[in-house]
Amino acid sequence: MFSLPKSIETLIAELQRLPGVGPKTASRLAFYLLRSGQNLHESLGNALINMKNGVNYCQECFGLTENNVCLICSDNLRQKNLLCVVEEVLDVVAIEETHAFKGLYHVLHGFLSPLDGIGPSDLKINELKERIMKKNADGENISEIILATNASVEGEATANFISQILKPFNLKTTRLARGIPTGGNLEYIDKLTLQRAMEGRGEF
Amino acid sequence: MFSLPKSIETLIAELQRLPGVGPKTASRLAFYLLRSGQNLHESLGNALINMKNGVNYCQECFGLTENNVCLICSDNLRQKNLLCVVEEVLDVVAIEETHAFKGLYHVLHGFLSPLDGIGPSDLKINELKERIMKKNADGENISEIILATNASVEGEATANFISQILKPFNLKTTRLARGIPTGGNLEYIDKLTLQRAMEGRGEF
Repeated sequence: MFSLPKSIETLIAELQRLPGVGPKTASRLAFYLLRSGQNLHESLGNALINMKNGVNYCQECFGLTENNVCLICSDNLRQKNLLCVVEEVLDVVAIEETHAFKGLYHVLHGFLSPLDGIGPSDLKINELKERIMKKNADGENISEIILATNASVEGEATANFISQILKPFNLKTTRLARGIPTGGNLEYIDKLTLQRAMEGRGEF
Repeated sequence: MFSLPKSIETLIAELQRLPGVGPKTASRLAFYLLRSGQNLHESLGNALINMKNGVNYCQECFGLTENNVCLICSDNLRQKNLLCVVEEVLDVVAIEETHAFKGLYHVLHGFLSPLDGIGPSDLKINELKERIMKKNADGENISEIILATNASVEGEATANFISQILKPFNLKTTRLARGIPTGGNLEYIDKLTLQRAMEGRGEF
């Protein structure tokens, strides 16, 4: 039976542990790295090994930072009374790139998914409650919580759950607008989106 | 401006150097690795750094091996008079998996592509010539050269070029059969493939 050298076999097996990488893609990547003369495999390998060096979760919002508190939470120019709750750090990156939000974030690190055994205690929901209580105690009242979870079934369920939990605080709780995406073609848009767009229509 | 920790930014930049990996995929992979608790990033990093350890090119066929000569070239049970010329090591793997070929291989390590500046001297074409001459001198005459390059424009051009070069040796030179792939539906097959399948038809 023909077999590749062990180190290459190991690499192909490791690459297959990445999401969306099957045996074919893994082999192709491994051979690409083998051919590339610029020691790409070493620089990528080092970047992987060092990826967690100096990376902490912000004590306030649980975003990523190299210190204890992230740049957003420690920025005095941000509106401290607006709190945007997102599923992942990448959602913070996406919203920051729009420059449309000047408040603070709270990263849940996932969404409720009972079938996968992910309950409220696996997310930063208690930490969100504590944060709101602490802020209120400090006199910096939060005026609005934006539940910016994904528009998926799980994201909606997570947002619903959190809105129930936050009821006692009597805060304004909002959700991102639902409607037709920019460049969207009515003909090809699903019924639910169109229905939501109709319901949420605004004046011209 | 919001930015991710440096080590994560570095990793995302390195991942983008892989073929088919854009900024979005790179970020998603980086965050997947960050979340995965099993130190996947370290084992993948080590596999990458060590990938070239103990990996040599076979002195005979330029396939991969952990020794000087690969297992196929040093296997006495293989038919030494049949030589299958392929573009890449992965093609050897693919043909070996069919168990339909018992001869030897010759890996070109690429295909002719003048626009990318890849000429005959960048491939193992001279080595192929020398190998044929050496074998003929040793009395182990090669009876057939199978030009198993890809069925792409570049693969065809490379095969044509090599067949011209090998003319003086008066060897039987063949090409893999072209036709309808297994499970292929006539209705959806391109004209050229159908034409080749018609030309190459065999008796029932």
